[in-house]
Amino acid sequence: MSRYWSPIVRELVPYVPGEQPKIKDLIKLNTNEHPLGPSPKVIGAIKAELNDSLRLYPDPNSDALKSVIADYHKVTPSQVFVGNGSDEVLAHIFFGLFQHGQPLLYPDVTYSFYPVYCGLYQIEGQAVPLDDDFVLRVEDYRQPNGGVIFPNPNAPTGRLLPLSDIETLMQHNTDSVVVVDEAYIDFGGETAIKLVDRYPNLLVTQTLSKSRSLAGLRVGFAVGHADLIDALERVKNSFNSYPVDRLALAGAVAAFEDEAWFKSACDYVIAERERVATGLESLGFDVIPSAANFVLARHPDHKGADLAAALRQRSIIVRHFQKPRIGDFLRITIGSEAQNAALLDALPDIV
Amino acid sequence: MSRYWSPIVRELVPYVPGEQPKIKDLIKLNTNEHPLGPSPKVIGAIKAELNDSLRLYPDPNSDALKSVIADYHKVTPSQVFVGNGSDEVLAHIFFGLFQHGQPLLYPDVTYSFYPVYCGLYQIEGQAVPLDDDFVLRVEDYRQPNGGVIFPNPNAPTGRLLPLSDIETLMQHNTDSVVVVDEAYIDFGGETAIKLVDRYPNLLVTQTLSKSRSLAGLRVGFAVGHADLIDALERVKNSFNSYPVDRLALAGAVAAFEDEAWFKSACDYVIAERERVATGLESLGFDVIPSAANFVLARHPDHKGADLAAALRQRSIIVRHFQKPRIGDFLRITIGSEAQNAALLDALPDIV
Repeated sequence: MSRYWSPIVRELVPYVPGEQPKIKDLIKLNTNEHPLGPSPKVIGAIKAELNDSLRLYPDPNSDALKSVIADYHKVTPSQVFVGNGSDEVLAHIFFGLFQHGQPLLYPDVTYSFYPVYCGLYQIEGQAVPLDDDFVLRVEDYRQPNGGVIFPNPNAPTGRLLPLSDIETLMQHNTDSVVVVDEAYIDFGGETAIKLVDRYPNLLVTQTLSKSRSLAGLRVGFAVGHADLIDALERVKNSFNSYPVDRLALAGAVAAFEDEAWFKSACDYVIAERERVATGLESLGFDVIPSAANFVLARHPDHKGADLAAALRQRSIIVRHFQKPRIGDFLRITIGSEAQNAALLDALPDIV
Repeated sequence: MSRYWSPIVRELVPYVPGEQPKIKDLIKLNTNEHPLGPSPKVIGAIKAELNDSLRLYPDPNSDALKSVIADYHKVTPSQVFVGNGSDEVLAHIFFGLFQHGQPLLYPDVTYSFYPVYCGLYQIEGQAVPLDDDFVLRVEDYRQPNGGVIFPNPNAPTGRLLPLSDIETLMQHNTDSVVVVDEAYIDFGGETAIKLVDRYPNLLVTQTLSKSRSLAGLRVGFAVGHADLIDALERVKNSFNSYPVDRLALAGAVAAFEDEAWFKSACDYVIAERERVATGLESLGFDVIPSAANFVLARHPDHKGADLAAALRQRSIIVRHFQKPRIGDFLRITIGSEAQNAALLDALPDIV
């Protein structure tokens, strides 16, 4: 604390990301990274850009990337916004679309960055309880609001909301922006991007960090009505003209051009997820049905913190949230076949 | 404009970066990029990091990079903040250190992003006139303020303020943060980083975009008292946990480890700057003395806009600002020997 800080800094409660350990040989199942490396075409495209052109600024508008994303999702480039990871995209959304003097609605169990953004931009956040099975009931969102945001599938539960429920929500919420944060959608859900032409207040965010194995490259995007995108561009251009570097742009474009790799990498995670879920259940765990690249699970006889600590002793790190409703759970990222086998081998000894 | 926009978005006046043309074969002297490519060691370090590890998030704290910057500038890592280009670092500074309900002071002719940040975060900006020769008089900053910021060398003038003047300013300004934006310092100035241990309210920003030829990689940093850095970390961790990607981190670390390349690349630009300045003067231009990698120059017989247009017709692009006091000037980036020769060859025909 210092007298030089802007007063708001004193009030901030920053986000705490999952640990990025510097020791090797850990089985890292804590931050929902993809177990496989990215498409070789991504590596090749970055290598081709790795030259003296690094002396030049990147395209501030990321036009080439917007264009491939637009083609991929059958929208126009003016409906696409890109940023330095979807966290930056979300930050600009909170600033540019959620400051309306009314509460922003999000689930009580959800991505813990949402209340942090609210603190940053002094938006009143209102947590709407999921039901006892962590299901989002869209009828609970029929109340005055300055915006709605939820991940789909939700994190850290993994639960998927059907697109029909999202449509119902949109039909009853026309006065504020609804953001569907689809960081994990490619692992088993149907994207709401197909609804954006029908609902001018719907914005969908995605990231290349999960299903495209590029957490290390920092690229995320939003798709919605051009008027919403325009707001984000205005905020971005008042914050940082060049948020996505030349190498990230080249890699991201290539990622959308290798559909075969993408499909098979998603299928790999989905098959492993089913194996992990079955294995956990056979050990007595309750596993929330997941459409993501992680599962949320608890064991009736063990505290979540104890299980996380016991796994850590065996060099396996998973995520445990010391929070209401999910304190007994572990969020376990789906790893490689070998990593998942190691997890399932370690657990009988612990439980 | 849309009813879904946060009201503040309507008021934003975004920054307009220099053009990044998509046509090749232009002589691009408009955005102060370095004429040479980066150190081969930077390319090598990035190549070594270009592998399956891209599936993993980068270190959210950029510890390795902070450590090399700290060693380089003889401070501790807790005195270093890094971000996605110095523009992002500046944005967090405006948010975290300049929101005090008093005017932020900056020169009337300066980096045009400063008033944009003020608009973004609703800070009152107060432009303090430079003297008739575009010299910053530190005594003009002895007035109540919520912060002070200026580039040194100033942009777009190129004028350098001696470190002794900065010390005088610091001695008379102890109640608010003073930011010295040293994007161009390596081309002929002395860094104020050597003063940070004496003045707890001094913060110095630098970038790898100019003197280290890495505009395409997006890395900037700030050095100051650990309490100031702490404010920036709190803002950053409430905005985006992972602003610098794995490849940028690897390249930036390597950039600080190749001092020989760095010195010779700076010397190249400095020598070329003197040649360009002399050449312009011999054609009748008034050239502001520059310690940066650009010169600000005007010709008594020609409007700045006309000169820029005539150069553009000859495939040479320079920056012209349609702004008070500098509307007659061109800001010309120092290019390669061949580019500068082409510029000096084209001008006699125009003037």
